[in-house]
Amino acid sequence: MNTNTHANEIDAFLRQLFPIPRSLTGDGNRDTLRILQEIIPLEIIEYPSGTPVYDWTIPDEWIIHDAYIKKPNGERVIDYSECNLHAVGYSMPINKTMVFDDLAPRLHMLESNPEAIPYRTTYYSRDWGFCVTKKQYEELESFSDPLEVCIDSEFDTNGAMVIGELQIPGETDKEFLVSTYVCHPSMANDNLSGILTAAFLARDLLQNGTPRCSWRFIFVPETIGAIAYLYHNETEMKGIRGGLVVTTCGGRGPLGFKESYLGNDLIDRAIRQAFKDRSIEPICYPFAPDGSDERQYSSPGFRIPMASITRDKYYEYSQYHTSLDNLEFVTGKQIKESLNMYRDVVNILDQNLFYCSTTPYGEPQLGKRNLYPSTGGAINQQGAAVSTNHGELDAITWLLFLADGEHDLLAISERSGLRFSVLQQVAGRLVEAGLVESVSARLTV
Amino acid sequence: MNTNTHANEIDAFLRQLFPIPRSLTGDGNRDTLRILQEIIPLEIIEYPSGTPVYDWTIPDEWIIHDAYIKKPNGERVIDYSECNLHAVGYSMPINKTMVFDDLAPRLHMLESNPEAIPYRTTYYSRDWGFCVTKKQYEELESFSDPLEVCIDSEFDTNGAMVIGELQIPGETDKEFLVSTYVCHPSMANDNLSGILTAAFLARDLLQNGTPRCSWRFIFVPETIGAIAYLYHNETEMKGIRGGLVVTTCGGRGPLGFKESYLGNDLIDRAIRQAFKDRSIEPICYPFAPDGSDERQYSSPGFRIPMASITRDKYYEYSQYHTSLDNLEFVTGKQIKESLNMYRDVVNILDQNLFYCSTTPYGEPQLGKRNLYPSTGGAINQQGAAVSTNHGELDAITWLLFLADGEHDLLAISERSGLRFSVLQQVAGRLVEAGLVESVSARLTV
Amino acid sequence: MNTNTHANEIDAFLRQLFPIPRSLTGDGNRDTLRILQEIIPLEIIEYPSGTPVYDWTIPDEWIIHDAYIKKPNGERVIDYSECNLHAVGYSMPINKTMVFDDLAPRLHMLESNPEAIPYRTTYYSRDWGFCVTKKQYEELESFSDPLEVCIDSEFDTNGAMVIGELQIPGETDKEFLVSTYVCHPSMANDNLSGILTAAFLARDLLQNGTPRCSWRFIFVPETIGAIAYLYHNETEMKGIRGGLVVTTCGGRGPLGFKESYLGNDLIDRAIRQAFKDRSIEPICYPFAPDGSDERQYSSPGFRIPMASITRDKYYEYSQYHTSLDNLEFVTGKQIKESLNMYRDVVNILDQNLFYCSTTPYGEPQLGKRNLYPSTGGAINQQGAAVSTNHGELDAITWLLFLADGEHDLLAISERSGLRFSVLQQVAGRLVEAGLVESVSARLTV
Repeated sequence: MNTNTHANEIDAFLRQLFPIPRSLTGDGNRDTLRILQEIIPLEIIEYPSGTPVYDWTIPDEWIIHDAYIKKPNGERVIDYSECNLHAVGYSMPINKTMVFDDLAPRLHMLESNPEAIPYRTTYYSRDWGFCVTKKQYEELESFSDPLEVCIDSEFDTNGAMVIGELQIPGETDKEFLVSTYVCHPSMANDNLSGILTAAFLARDLLQNGTPRCSWRFIFVPETIGAIAYLYHNETEMKGIRGGLVVTTCGGRGPLGFKESYLGNDLIDRAIRQAFKDRSIEPICYPFAPDGSDERQYSSPGFRIPMASITRDKYYEYSQYHTSLDNLEFVTGKQIKESLNMYRDVVNILDQNLFYCSTTPYGEPQLGKRNLYPSTGGAINQQGAAVSTNHGELDAITWLLFLADGEHDLLAISERSGLRFSVLQQVAGRLVEAGLVESVSARLTV
Repeated sequence: MNTNTHANEIDAFLRQLFPIPRSLTGDGNRDTLRILQEIIPLEIIEYPSGTPVYDWTIPDEWIIHDAYIKKPNGERVIDYSECNLHAVGYSMPINKTMVFDDLAPRLHMLESNPEAIPYRTTYYSRDWGFCVTKKQYEELESFSDPLEVCIDSEFDTNGAMVIGELQIPGETDKEFLVSTYVCHPSMANDNLSGILTAAFLARDLLQNGTPRCSWRFIFVPETIGAIAYLYHNETEMKGIRGGLVVTTCGGRGPLGFKESYLGNDLIDRAIRQAFKDRSIEPICYPFAPDGSDERQYSSPGFRIPMASITRDKYYEYSQYHTSLDNLEFVTGKQIKESLNMYRDVVNILDQNLFYCSTTPYGEPQLGKRNLYPSTGGAINQQGAAVSTNHGELDAITWLLFLADGEHDLLAISERSGLRFSVLQQVAGRLVEAGLVESVSARLTV
Repeated sequence: MNTNTHANEIDAFLRQLFPIPRSLTGDGNRDTLRILQEIIPLEIIEYPSGTPVYDWTIPDEWIIHDAYIKKPNGERVIDYSECNLHAVGYSMPINKTMVFDDLAPRLHMLESNPEAIPYRTTYYSRDWGFCVTKKQYEELESFSDPLEVCIDSEFDTNGAMVIGELQIPGETDKEFLVSTYVCHPSMANDNLSGILTAAFLARDLLQNGTPRCSWRFIFVPETIGAIAYLYHNETEMKGIRGGLVVTTCGGRGPLGFKESYLGNDLIDRAIRQAFKDRSIEPICYPFAPDGSDERQYSSPGFRIPMASITRDKYYEYSQYHTSLDNLEFVTGKQIKESLNMYRDVVNILDQNLFYCSTTPYGEPQLGKRNLYPSTGGAINQQGAAVSTNHGELDAITWLLFLADGEHDLLAISERSGLRFSVLQQVAGRLVEAGLVESVSARLTV
């Protein structure tokens, strides 16, 4: 089941969203969420600066107007308007003239990646700094005269942190979470790819009729955003069955899968099945309490199992957290392939029903229902005038055999080696034929 | 523990039973069961045609007198009296003259196995047809003049399906099932080998004194016979602990083992242990809901774990379901080797007792009971004047160590790596010495 | 955490203890335990001969004054005072003149190890014999004249079996057992190495302040001593959580690990972790009910899981149970390495606390507690002015993530791959920072 989304639609949003300066707070985040409202009816929520959320506090809103380093002749060597990675995130205001040697400790540069501007932040410690390429660093170093250094920023104690939320109610109370983070500035894989994958995944679900389960999509700043959301939705979040952290899934490399902290939860099994059904062997990343917001959702108080499907996972690609993580590296076509995987996983989680046979004593007679070859004895049933092919017959017999109310479709898929989508389709035919019923259906009666 | 049966005794029954035409119903089945009564006191039970059994109905009895295809000069090209596979099973009567092109769709032939007459049935769809070799097909094809086609069959709505049953009561209510199918016409591995293995296995049990467990042997047509039996014995069958479907165990190939649906049930463990104790590595066939009557016994309403020991398992040999599955392929000697395996499994299941030590605090003093070497210090106890050799001493210490009422002999065998029969014998010595008692014995006190 | 003991201290005790004749009973055992009192405050307990202990009886005390075989000219060929292995343990008195052919059945010699005097006993069957080298055997064989054979021994029915016990009470009732056997005469690896390892292990514990758990060290004759101790301490022994049988741990070979009967008990896991933390891959010996006193402690009535760390384990080295198991084979340096492993295991078992996060909802903010790098974005946090390095940060995040009262430090170590000692230290810092508390601490509140 592929997404309804075209690669070029993704590409258009990539181009629109890439230049916007995002952070923990600020108008860049507001703009980003407003643009996402063109895709899905996202509700935008503001948490005021200063609000305590568990062990944390919503930070003051960071507003940055400009930032530069001018050489002695007044020309800008470093210019925030050219790349918003130049200013260390949450830099406090500074405006002074200083010689290079005094400035040097505030400059971040990558010896190993000289073309790249690194991405750095100083969220929780009032400080300032610039991120530059090695060439820029060397140019600055060449001036013995003082340099004019300016970061025109301010902190608004009456500001807020904004987050986006979309709840899709399903037929049942069983609820899954899809979370992605919106705090990174101009980097394409980390995490525009995740933002757009989550948005289009939500749109696919909305376009597909009422899902069986409920789905909650949230777009939050990493760490503090997730913690703030948990704080404001504690009771509901404790009822979440599991979920997905959508991140870094637009690179050129092979697909990956970071396991949930449980390692073999329903979430993990659904992802493994989805990969298997597409004959893809993902890079497997065992759970570790680093990474992204699974750290918060899976913390002892919540223990929501969260996994991620990635493509060039954070930490794992050379452009990570630099200006080279750009639109040359990430494309709509690449994101679409990750989106297809996510869609399969959502389908498995959403449609993973338990069935009960209505004829549990011995097998039902398939022949009289035109579900079995009429001539017996041959192994492969070749030439049988029947509407059931061999793969379907396998799926029928496995499904009937395990239709005891204790095996969901995913378990049947794992046990039989058959594709989830094949079993899902055959389950529909058997329900029509009156041979099985889904357990919730039976319970309703 | 080898069977009491000689290979040439099996051979004699093979020759007698092979030519008899068997099907779901009919006198061929009656004759077969009557001949088996020469081996064991089988009770023959008739289920009347038309009886509903769960989702199925006992079919009308199929009676076939003759079947042939005559060439234009009146000679028979195809003659049922030469091989009962020529008529598709349950063919309805036909008697007409027709040209080859009209006949062709009713002819079953194997391109890939030109010497073989295939085996086909049309049990639940009124139809007719012939099974022929490729050479016969080509001969029929060569006649442009019409051919006389006749199947002299009838369906008796007052008929019955016959099955055979032998219940061997044991000392306890724990009951195992041995089932085999009797519906296949002249094919030696599928399933005369299974029929005779089951019959001689039952005779071995009867000759061996009262077993500890109860054993139920049934000889039924495949699928409908098993379902009918389940229907008529529903309550008792729900109490069956597990069992064996005896099928295709007389070929020339290596021994195989189809696992129960649980994969590691007592039944599976007993079979693995039996193979290990004879140092045989069987071909392992994981459970799938195809195959034979395990489909019925293990269905959701019963869930009896059933496994099979095979030798050239159905589906797996080139002669399968053809006239080449004959007495050149199957011999009494080959069947006897499968029978020995089945006997070992039956012994393990039947004698798998739990023991409790009477001296559970520390080890008992074996020396004063002449169960231990009197000179200490040597590793191998060589030269010790004691009636206990090193293998037995191992068995004694393992058995005493695990004699806690929670480990049966099979578990002790698996844990220690010692043969079941060695532990069985040592358990007897320890019971005599008063060092252990079987848990049921203790419970009686 | 290495032992406080120096190799040369161990060497001094090895030299002092090696020549002493030990057995099930006798003054050699009393002397041995008295010397051990120089290391630890061992309590010496006597069980009178004739006392019934479960299925056994404390044997009469065996007193041996002398033993020899004189050649016709009156010179001693075999002399007990040269090596106490010459007399079969528990030999009854004998004093007669006999020709070689009559003596031969009483001589124990190793064809395969001609330089060695074997070690043999006849504890529970009144008999006598000599153990000799092959050369000595051949010399005796060369005399056609009668030989004078004398074992000047006696059995004291008013004697006793002595054992040593040291109980180290901890902060909690959870109790572990360390047992070693003191019944073997002059053999260095089996079991002087075990005796000294256990003694110095106890001293390390005593020197280290009150342990969290209680620890019970016992020094007993093998089998009968362990059984007698169990008999006299039945109730307390049923409460023991697990333990260590300290044996044959002073050879030159690689370290080994005999698993407990459970195979993956806390005891086994602690040992595996200790080896892993020192990057040592031990030889692994799966449990079997042979070996040493685990047979008694783990018997059905007690089921205390007991494991051993060995170095040239009994059965496994060519000098085993011979006079070649001497102080050329065993050194204090070698024993010290085993002692270090045992100490690590004791530390893990003793300090294996469960922790609960005080901020279980999401992560706590480490930055404000100076436990996190202040500049975000870099993977390796290089150059961060923080007192936390990368390995510690890993340990902090794993520990906080699993601080749910259900994971002890050992489980966190196993899950994270981090060393136990690193987690132990970090746990201390987090307790100080108020971020976690040990569960028992919380329960006290």
